[in-house]
Amino acid sequence: MPTLLILSSNADEYKQLIKSAQLPDLEFTTEPEDCDIVLGEPNLIRDTLPRLSSLEWVQAIYAGVERLMDPVLPRDYTLTNARGVFGELMSEYVFGYLLLHEKKIFERQRAQQSKQWDRTESGVLRGKTIGLLGVGSIGSHLAGTAKHFGMSVHGFTRQSESCADVDVYFHDPEILKFGAGLDYLVSVLPRTNHTNKIVDASLFDALPSHAVFINVGRGNAVDESALVIALQEGEIAAAVLDVTEKEPLPEDHPFWNTPNLLLSFHTSAISYPENISKLFVENYYLYLEDKPLMHQVYFEKGY
Amino acid sequence: MPTLLILSSNADEYKQLIKSAQLPDLEFTTEPEDCDIVLGEPNLIRDTLPRLSSLEWVQAIYAGVERLMDPVLPRDYTLTNARGVFGELMSEYVFGYLLLHEKKIFERQRAQQSKQWDRTESGVLRGKTIGLLGVGSIGSHLAGTAKHFGMSVHGFTRQSESCADVDVYFHDPEILKFGAGLDYLVSVLPRTNHTNKIVDASLFDALPSHAVFINVGRGNAVDESALVIALQEGEIAAAVLDVTEKEPLPEDHPFWNTPNLLLSFHTSAISYPENISKLFVENYYLYLEDKPLMHQVYFEKGY
Repeated sequence: MPTLLILSSNADEYKQLIKSAQLPDLEFTTEPEDCDIVLGEPNLIRDTLPRLSSLEWVQAIYAGVERLMDPVLPRDYTLTNARGVFGELMSEYVFGYLLLHEKKIFERQRAQQSKQWDRTESGVLRGKTIGLLGVGSIGSHLAGTAKHFGMSVHGFTRQSESCADVDVYFHDPEILKFGAGLDYLVSVLPRTNHTNKIVDASLFDALPSHAVFINVGRGNAVDESALVIALQEGEIAAAVLDVTEKEPLPEDHPFWNTPNLLLSFHTSAISYPENISKLFVENYYLYLEDKPLMHQVYFEKGY
Repeated sequence: MPTLLILSSNADEYKQLIKSAQLPDLEFTTEPEDCDIVLGEPNLIRDTLPRLSSLEWVQAIYAGVERLMDPVLPRDYTLTNARGVFGELMSEYVFGYLLLHEKKIFERQRAQQSKQWDRTESGVLRGKTIGLLGVGSIGSHLAGTAKHFGMSVHGFTRQSESCADVDVYFHDPEILKFGAGLDYLVSVLPRTNHTNKIVDASLFDALPSHAVFINVGRGNAVDESALVIALQEGEIAAAVLDVTEKEPLPEDHPFWNTPNLLLSFHTSAISYPENISKLFVENYYLYLEDKPLMHQVYFEKGY
């Protein structure tokens, strides 16, 4: 019988949701040694991996699974992550901050505080160009929202060109050409060996000075010192970081008070048990039938 | 020959744009007495109306034409306003402020200023219900954006039920029932005799206490004293006003520092000459052929 171990601070909620789906043959356990399936948070799974002697499949409840990528860890199981459930949340986040910028909402608030009837013209999304660093399921969702708002969408990927909402694709070594044509740059890149400091001084230099950079992927993609300089020297207009290299951000980190830099403390997309449980249920039926699981992560690629 | 007078602070830009369309037979004048067509700002047209002795058609460059509705003014001409060009701008504005609220962007900024890694959960638009007071061309566009974000859309109108993106329609006398079911209330109502203080104490009372009210229509629709009380007493969570009864807002008006009230000084949608000129050109061809013009305003209804 397939036996499931749940490793999450919301374990009770997950158990209840999965029980209510009445999955055939599934048993639950709290003993790592007994399970062949684990559903949970990558950090908790990592700590338990040495004891998971009969593990066949891990369903991570996050998109980011870098904690399971360490080459010293076992890789003799199928790893699937949470995908397809964060695009909507990420779209709300990214377009919220882009609209905050264009509608000058902070400036209007300051005008109100000083009783100034300030009719400075707002900017518009319509007609602008957004560049997506990474066009997987989240990037594709962002592209769809950009299209809803009448924007052009440029995509930078390693190879794939599969999203119909992307107007123009760029690949290595065209990243500076990609950057030069953008009004907004959004990174949704996962943490892999290939994404370290992709967003560096040369890319900030290539971006127009009115550009806004948003990172909703992973902090390793950004050369943080170069970003501080780019903002201090006005090479770009603003940056919004949901993620940083170190989280929580150390108290002495310059990001806390870099001009035109906004932090949101990794809140852009959280894992709702209702959504993640549905993913698990769908994958469980595939698992029972010995079919390929959805959203498999490849250890050699890291995503 | 049709003769056009342009009454706008951007008259030169309008003239150039219209000239470039090479409209058949059209002549330009700067003499009010000579024209049969006027393109311009309603306030400037109002002042000039007594001298427009051979006037046949006025194309207003704004949506709001209440300044031409005064019963003492001549009505022996066809009035058309600017419509169909503001929906996109209004969607950007309204959803920018809704996302500001849900993503707690002001709160995150304050957390950053005090170096707090504040992971308070964000809210989401998805699954929420937006109520539109007025579902014309702007309301329909807002409804489309709400659908893009996975929301339910309720509409309150006098009679019409023509927008496919509205899930449920309400009409008089159901306004309190309409309000009770909303997370967000957005007024796009024009200034008419029927819209005075539609948004009043009883409607604020009917709205849930977490509701956000946004006014992008006209200030007359709101009982301003009732709104101040509703915000002070927490009957609703927040209000965003692009328009107010008096503009600019008097310096001693309580709105300047009512809690959770944001002002944006009538900047949500401006008339871009490129867009308005296109409307004029399309209507001019209809005018030449003696066909009904687009976006006609009816003096008796006021819109």
